[in-house]
Amino acid sequence: MKAIIISVGDELTSGQTVDTNSAHLARELDGLGIHTARHMTVGDDREAVAGAITAAAAQAELVLVTGGLGPTADDLTRQGLADAMGGVELVEDAASLAAMEAFFRRRGRVMVAANRIQAMFPAGSTPIANSRGTAAGIAAKLGRADVYVMPGVPVEMRRMFAERIAPELPAGTSAVVRRVLHTFGTGESDVGSRLADLMARATNPLIGTTVAAGLVSVRVTARAQDAEAARAMADAAVAEVSSRLGDWVVGEGDHAMAAAVGAGLRERGQTLVTAESCTGGLIGKMVTDPAGSSDYYLGGVVSYANAAKRDLLGVREQTLAEHGAVSEPVAREMARGARERFGADWAVSATGIAGPGGGSEEKPVGLVYIGVSGPGVDEAHRHVLPGDRETIRLRAATAALNHLRLALRAKQH
Amino acid sequence: MKAIIISVGDELTSGQTVDTNSAHLARELDGLGIHTARHMTVGDDREAVAGAITAAAAQAELVLVTGGLGPTADDLTRQGLADAMGGVELVEDAASLAAMEAFFRRRGRVMVAANRIQAMFPAGSTPIANSRGTAAGIAAKLGRADVYVMPGVPVEMRRMFAERIAPELPAGTSAVVRRVLHTFGTGESDVGSRLADLMARATNPLIGTTVAAGLVSVRVTARAQDAEAARAMADAAVAEVSSRLGDWVVGEGDHAMAAAVGAGLRERGQTLVTAESCTGGLIGKMVTDPAGSSDYYLGGVVSYANAAKRDLLGVREQTLAEHGAVSEPVAREMARGARERFGADWAVSATGIAGPGGGSEEKPVGLVYIGVSGPGVDEAHRHVLPGDRETIRLRAATAALNHLRLALRAKQH
Repeated sequence: MKAIIISVGDELTSGQTVDTNSAHLARELDGLGIHTARHMTVGDDREAVAGAITAAAAQAELVLVTGGLGPTADDLTRQGLADAMGGVELVEDAASLAAMEAFFRRRGRVMVAANRIQAMFPAGSTPIANSRGTAAGIAAKLGRADVYVMPGVPVEMRRMFAERIAPELPAGTSAVVRRVLHTFGTGESDVGSRLADLMARATNPLIGTTVAAGLVSVRVTARAQDAEAARAMADAAVAEVSSRLGDWVVGEGDHAMAAAVGAGLRERGQTLVTAESCTGGLIGKMVTDPAGSSDYYLGGVVSYANAAKRDLLGVREQTLAEHGAVSEPVAREMARGARERFGADWAVSATGIAGPGGGSEEKPVGLVYIGVSGPGVDEAHRHVLPGDRETIRLRAATAALNHLRLALRAKQH
Repeated sequence: MKAIIISVGDELTSGQTVDTNSAHLARELDGLGIHTARHMTVGDDREAVAGAITAAAAQAELVLVTGGLGPTADDLTRQGLADAMGGVELVEDAASLAAMEAFFRRRGRVMVAANRIQAMFPAGSTPIANSRGTAAGIAAKLGRADVYVMPGVPVEMRRMFAERIAPELPAGTSAVVRRVLHTFGTGESDVGSRLADLMARATNPLIGTTVAAGLVSVRVTARAQDAEAARAMADAAVAEVSSRLGDWVVGEGDHAMAAAVGAGLRERGQTLVTAESCTGGLIGKMVTDPAGSSDYYLGGVVSYANAAKRDLLGVREQTLAEHGAVSEPVAREMARGARERFGADWAVSATGIAGPGGGSEEKPVGLVYIGVSGPGVDEAHRHVLPGDRETIRLRAATAALNHLRLALRAKQH
């Protein structure tokens, strides 16, 4: 079964609002084993809506539409659907009108005349009750295709899909299990070349890569007759990908890097502190993204000024004078100093030039030194990171946690 | 002039990633007076890409495509474009290959064979240099339509559009000026009711509100024959909105809150430090988002553990024992302590319960105390913030900077 998702609204086509509804619905369909072939976004334009619905119904068995069901003059999805249904009339539905009047009564408000349009539906279609707002949805049959129209307000749309539409959909012909493995330490092309044979198109499980927030993520999509079989296929693929990518593999889920570091510390019952310059607190923020991080994270120092590096972390005046704040010796002394001051087992530090100003031939924008100090560990790493200020800072913080992750892993063996 | 935007990627059609590129490009086109008629999203499928480009080129004069230019087997946009161009061959571009080799050399890495595909372009098309990554873009003519293909990585796409593509586009028929005024301290409906008469539809300038990242933002869109007239209209509307919203108005642009705080400090030639518990470093990170923040930001302490509050910030054991770490007295002592230790003019602190665990009847998840210490200023503020862990932390950091902003403003008068 193939689906097409249509979103309607000038605020979407003009880019003032990012469309999150289509992604939500695609994920929901995916969970039901229904493949989304494409998304389309059109403006508040009757003809465009009718055209999109007609085209989608010719190409897919399921068409989900969101937006344009409001009470104002720019809401034209019901009219567009009526046109796509061969120019049928809009007919008032007494039950929907009563429900809407009750909705306003419960809120102590009077229904204005404009809302009446929200009780009008193309002849031959079926209203779908909205438990969260005034805009009822619409179900219609267009040739072979089932068309469902939902309001654009995300909370109303999500509720309506979950309660009223998903139960109506035929179970997909196959079960789908998706896993996403985040990696760090190399480029997408390196990852791709290690997985080249697995990434051939039209294979099952399907394996693809994406780059986001400095991580290269490997997506594994397994399809099978039932969920258990799909899960087994996905597990096997993830194991194969993991063994090929080795230490690059950080983990799965949100905050994968911080979670990997946290798991390493928790396993050893050890504590961590941070010492940050160019990242300004971002490493600490990332470490504390996962709940429960207070089990191992004691805190840190943001030593943006040199005086703070000296007074709060014990970096020697001489080291600063001889090597400069952005240098390997300072990264080492920051990490050691933080570890000592807090009495922690581990410390990670970052000092660098995030730009856009402050770079030189010898020390360019993007130059970052990472220090890692721990039991029997005293490391410093030099990076020259590409990107703008925001990207450099994010990559520096991620690289810092990755060095810590690898140090924790090495000490484990 | 009409545009259609196409995004490519299985991670988009399946909903694993929300497409923000299309909205970004639509906003950029809007600023150039070019109307975006629709967006389309297709998967990593050569035929689907070719079909979408062909259909779009038949309907619009400008087609912008993002994604699918990577080095791996699931990146098929260049092949899809070649098919849409009538099945032309892919031809290697020596200059692009050299640029890519230099990119890897600069980063001390060796280019793998897989990357070579990124220097191949449909015969008759033109490569577009990528200053941020290995994926060059592609410009092509398809019938009447200009087609531009960009990488999907947002930072690369944005830079390429701004530097290489936007300058090539014809000026639109009317000038559009957009301004966005960020506010903090009240809800969207409060802002809306102060601006009700200005927010009527189909007016020019058009005024709307959006909520994002804890800020309520007021969008002003002015259209006129020429840029100067549009700018004058927008300026007048912004002045009117600002006078109605008063102290709620934080400012415009990226990092508006941090920039407002920075401007206040710079004006007075004063310095700032941070003392963070539940925010874990996020306040410091936000303060240092704008370049040049080292002019006034000395650094901070992340005192996640109580021992760190005591040892590094001088919070008294008795205060912690009597009131608990999440309390008004501790927020005050954290700010005072940080200010003294660093010898700064101002300090801001946050201590709270970000959840999901750790809440109680008396101290629920979302409870956050903010401390502000400065010349003649010793404040503490209590908040109970809604949302999940991530939202609570972001709101706490934003609220902390807002209290500091208001304190700086008050001391100014």
